[in-house]
Amino acid sequence: MKAGPSIAVVGAGAFGTALAVVIARKAKGEVLLLGRDEALIEQMRSQRQNPRYLPGIDLPDTILPSTDTAAIAAASTVLLAVPSQAQRETARQLSPMLAGDASVVICAKGFEKTTGERLSDVLKGELGASRTCAVLSGPGFAGEIAAGLPTAMTLAAESLGDAERLTGVLSSETFRLYASDDLVGVQVGGALKNVLAIACGIVEGARLGESARAALIARGLAELTRFAISEGAQAHTLAGLSGLGDLVLTATSRQSRNLRFGIALGEGRRASELLGPTAALAEGAYTAAAAARIAAERGIAMPVTDAVSSIIGGQTTVADALKSLMERPLTTEGH
Amino acid sequence: MKAGPSIAVVGAGAFGTALAVVIARKAKGEVLLLGRDEALIEQMRSQRQNPRYLPGIDLPDTILPSTDTAAIAAASTVLLAVPSQAQRETARQLSPMLAGDASVVICAKGFEKTTGERLSDVLKGELGASRTCAVLSGPGFAGEIAAGLPTAMTLAAESLGDAERLTGVLSSETFRLYASDDLVGVQVGGALKNVLAIACGIVEGARLGESARAALIARGLAELTRFAISEGAQAHTLAGLSGLGDLVLTATSRQSRNLRFGIALGEGRRASELLGPTAALAEGAYTAAAAARIAAERGIAMPVTDAVSSIIGGQTTVADALKSLMERPLTTEGH
Repeated sequence: MKAGPSIAVVGAGAFGTALAVVIARKAKGEVLLLGRDEALIEQMRSQRQNPRYLPGIDLPDTILPSTDTAAIAAASTVLLAVPSQAQRETARQLSPMLAGDASVVICAKGFEKTTGERLSDVLKGELGASRTCAVLSGPGFAGEIAAGLPTAMTLAAESLGDAERLTGVLSSETFRLYASDDLVGVQVGGALKNVLAIACGIVEGARLGESARAALIARGLAELTRFAISEGAQAHTLAGLSGLGDLVLTATSRQSRNLRFGIALGEGRRASELLGPTAALAEGAYTAAAAARIAAERGIAMPVTDAVSSIIGGQTTVADALKSLMERPLTTEGH
Repeated sequence: MKAGPSIAVVGAGAFGTALAVVIARKAKGEVLLLGRDEALIEQMRSQRQNPRYLPGIDLPDTILPSTDTAAIAAASTVLLAVPSQAQRETARQLSPMLAGDASVVICAKGFEKTTGERLSDVLKGELGASRTCAVLSGPGFAGEIAAGLPTAMTLAAESLGDAERLTGVLSSETFRLYASDDLVGVQVGGALKNVLAIACGIVEGARLGESARAALIARGLAELTRFAISEGAQAHTLAGLSGLGDLVLTATSRQSRNLRFGIALGEGRRASELLGPTAALAEGAYTAAAAARIAAERGIAMPVTDAVSSIIGGQTTVADALKSLMERPLTTEGH
């Protein structure tokens, strides 16, 4: 076994740094924090803070900021805190250095855009089908996690045993992880809640009221759950931290880019003005179109997702979409 | 059949007036709005507004404000929009005037404190077991309903047929009602969400962050659902408008008295200072103690409800309650 930290966080942005901080506060050994930017890593070494992405938070002494990917060889738990669309490339680069029995934890949400694949499948493809690939998801802002405020998230793996082992390694008093064996549900919930956050933003931007937003969250969760089940998810996952919990956070906090994108739409701006170079920032804009298409193929009713997709695509206005949502035939709950 | 409006709203407060307004906008005939305060009813007749409880909203011409309870005899649908603790007395007074086949819709949340009974059971006791007693519940602020903002709520009756008939009578384009046959789930959710709203307030008052509040809503809904199922509810009702939807509204809007009560607790004020004469205003304070006791008898884990009950009872501090919540043994989701 090679010497070095047994826990590594890959990605020195806000979320990666926050994870390294909260884990290092309770871990016995050192925690490797791998970044690509030499200047930033050097700043973190000398200032013991991440001034660019997480200013004001002191890094525990046991965090080792580094750009040396070879240092990952000793890690038995590797957290990939890089953006969704960089997960494949990062896994490919790290693959030769990774210990055979190291578990990888995806700390990003959404699907790979070029293939439409879930990130766990992307990583299995790059790292081998026998590799333990887990997903960390749920309501957790980097700044709050790092500040030691109480946070609870879901950690899902294919087997509950792996998930429970990893929650044991990573959980602490302020950072509480719940184990799940529903890799599909956690990832589908994490992606689709962004669509509903855009919808909540539209309601807010169009000044439709707090009651409408609350109803949208409840009815939206119902359609998100229908879709997730068609993908093979367990219903209770969507009602949990990574589904409902993350949805509530994303849909009610101004810190959410998807919410802010929706608010601008609700205020009457066109998606075509808002997208363009910053399109990647509102993940839900992409997810809405993909989910609406798949739902139509499968015959799953997703009126909110359809409306968001049509508004972004310019096929309908906010006023018309709302009118058709409110005029749908009345149904019973649970349908 | 007696002449007179076929729809009656009893209670001329903000919610009753808002219901009368939204129903009158689409109803073909007149809508009776029954109040007890002669002066207020007279003002409503002459000004065509309810200046005390719903200022700024014009009453449609078809609303008949009245104090004459005998006028209810022609109504086939009667909405009881009086406070929970006044439902029994109101039903008892109206009982002799009520048409034999009139359906009664409870528009209030919570249990009767003196007996612990659900309001539907209270009304069955007063109006006879064969009387159709439905419940309207879900996320809907009076001001938003009356302003014609889009609102969606649940209407539950013992039989789905009755619920669907009543949603047909009362729904309109801006006021969308979903039928349910889960009278128990709708009422238990409507009462227990106030406990979680207090918990969310505590988190906000103690400045624990948005992530913590979102996690609390997700984990809190899980325990609320466990409790409701033990009462005979259907799980999906709690994930719907009257459970999750109303919870989100109550837990995130400053318009909620229970949330404001929790914020004061979280800021360090004692429940004993806050309760007293205004105790009745934070329904959740009463519900927390009752639910915690019943859950303990049944062996149902309700850590959030227990914590709220203990903080209100003065047996624990906010800091200690939080510590014990975060130090509970880790579990899997769905448990």
